[in-house]
Amino acid sequence: MNESKQIIVAVIGLAHGHIYQMCRGLIAAGAQLKYVYDEDLSAVQSFTRVFPQVIPVQSEEDVFSDREVKLVASADIPSKRAALGIRAMKAGKDFFCAKAPAITQRQIRGIKKTMRKTGNKFFVFYSEFFESEAAVYADKLIKEGTIGKVLNVTILAPHRLGESRPKWFYERKKSGGILIDIGSHQFDQFLTFTGNNRAKILSSGIGNFAHRDFEGFDDFGDVHLVGENGATGYIRVDWFTPEALPVFGDGKVVILGETGYIELRKYIDVGCGDSCENVILVTKDKISKESVKDKTEKPFFSNLIYDCLHRTETAMSFKQTFHAMELAVKSQKKAKRLI
Amino acid sequence: MNESKQIIVAVIGLAHGHIYQMCRGLIAAGAQLKYVYDEDLSAVQSFTRVFPQVIPVQSEEDVFSDREVKLVASADIPSKRAALGIRAMKAGKDFFCAKAPAITQRQIRGIKKTMRKTGNKFFVFYSEFFESEAAVYADKLIKEGTIGKVLNVTILAPHRLGESRPKWFYERKKSGGILIDIGSHQFDQFLTFTGNNRAKILSSGIGNFAHRDFEGFDDFGDVHLVGENGATGYIRVDWFTPEALPVFGDGKVVILGETGYIELRKYIDVGCGDSCENVILVTKDKISKESVKDKTEKPFFSNLIYDCLHRTETAMSFKQTFHAMELAVKSQKKAKRLI
Repeated sequence: MNESKQIIVAVIGLAHGHIYQMCRGLIAAGAQLKYVYDEDLSAVQSFTRVFPQVIPVQSEEDVFSDREVKLVASADIPSKRAALGIRAMKAGKDFFCAKAPAITQRQIRGIKKTMRKTGNKFFVFYSEFFESEAAVYADKLIKEGTIGKVLNVTILAPHRLGESRPKWFYERKKSGGILIDIGSHQFDQFLTFTGNNRAKILSSGIGNFAHRDFEGFDDFGDVHLVGENGATGYIRVDWFTPEALPVFGDGKVVILGETGYIELRKYIDVGCGDSCENVILVTKDKISKESVKDKTEKPFFSNLIYDCLHRTETAMSFKQTFHAMELAVKSQKKAKRLI
Repeated sequence: MNESKQIIVAVIGLAHGHIYQMCRGLIAAGAQLKYVYDEDLSAVQSFTRVFPQVIPVQSEEDVFSDREVKLVASADIPSKRAALGIRAMKAGKDFFCAKAPAITQRQIRGIKKTMRKTGNKFFVFYSEFFESEAAVYADKLIKEGTIGKVLNVTILAPHRLGESRPKWFYERKKSGGILIDIGSHQFDQFLTFTGNNRAKILSSGIGNFAHRDFEGFDDFGDVHLVGENGATGYIRVDWFTPEALPVFGDGKVVILGETGYIELRKYIDVGCGDSCENVILVTKDKISKESVKDKTEKPFFSNLIYDCLHRTETAMSFKQTFHAMELAVKSQKKAKRLI
């Protein structure tokens, strides 16, 4: 094992299934999972069936007091993530959080302040970029100048609701709302692809069209925004993936540049068999479609571990990460209620 | 020939090439072209090379005074279309106009008033709906309830600028601007697909990113809007079709319904050979992609002639046609300048 990949991780908060994806990624990149804590013992049982090497502990304190633990990973209820991350950073740990990491501007300010004060890190798992080979590949194409200056990013990010969501998921005070929950990593992609440090919400909408049993729930949201370099974005998020689709959502991104455009069909390309992570590229002299699945390195988890060990910032820009969250919170707060 | 299809048409105003598509459609549906008038004699010459049966005349009056002429078709400079149409209607003719038919709210009010007063008709050639089999087919699917209530329509409508645009095209006072020019038929599609009579602009942007030689020109525009039933829309229009694309633009429409979604790839489906007018449909129990090219009736021109002869309203809803224009003019006027 590469010495530089040895890092001890503990898990606190199993409320969302994303924790499994996060832990698999960490382990594959060389991390060692040591502890798990959640007050829901059945969630802990399920977790240790998948990761039997992990020791269940009785409290956060058991995790925080072990100096060997460098990183705490969490998919707690969204409203609780910021405070947990702040406690972890104050206890000397780096923190790795499912999205969205915060649901209010106050929480975001608290995280940023604690990062500055403690020097510890707060990573966010914006999986629709980091785990999408098409997205990572598109970023590379853009940075190489393949489509010129980016003028617009349009993202359609439908998701499947399914039947087994926990109660907190439907409560806006706990989940934050659709533009915070599913929106957050779309804002992050907008900033990445357009090369903007900052952006401004032009308008946003939220609605509950078809899930009236859940009063505090948004099943649809959309946002029009503009970056400081003039590039605009549109983000549509919803919980309306139809039953017949074999994946969780037909996620698409279209990136318009001055000299070309890129379209990403991340999870499915309907009518094109099993192909996914498809990238369409059209420029002055090229027109192509190819699947980049299993062809593109996704360096996120390795970089995260490297950053923990070497105090660098290679996995993600923290400035961008939290500005994406600020945009998500702002768009949710000022959203027009559509219905 | 079916008696009901006999109608005599005259052409006034050849500024935009759309007049050729309009005349071909009329002729194919049984109309007879009699006269052509434009002060640009070389444009008239080109036109009569394509349609040698048509008689060039010296003035509008020569057209208006012939009682046999029932319909005047025009692709004059956009800023002049409304006044020409009003003159034609006052002379007892119906009028068939390239989009956009007007560039100010005052012009739209003038058209509507003259329609009411004279009882004559003012048709608009919203070609990206009427001439797209995929769009017409999608409308049918929606009306049959295939995807349930429509919640969102996202339209990407890139266009190729080319090298040979006339001077007026680059002047906002004559062309109206990008959200009026290319935007107008996107607003019409939003209203059609969402089933809204009225909508409201939430935000809009225009920019000139790469054509700084033309001060009064927008090469990019986008709009976020909401219909009175809560459905939202996003429209992106631009003049950035890359050289390698073999068609004028990779026009796409994604229509999200409560129980399914439809994606239209109208003019090209990159990586899928020559197929176009492709319709993706995903519902509770179906997932499919098919080309509807040459499989779907496009009844626009036949209906237009029928409406002229029988004073019906089957080709297009005039209320919708002009509300689409009101939205286009409003979005252009209140657009944020992006750059």
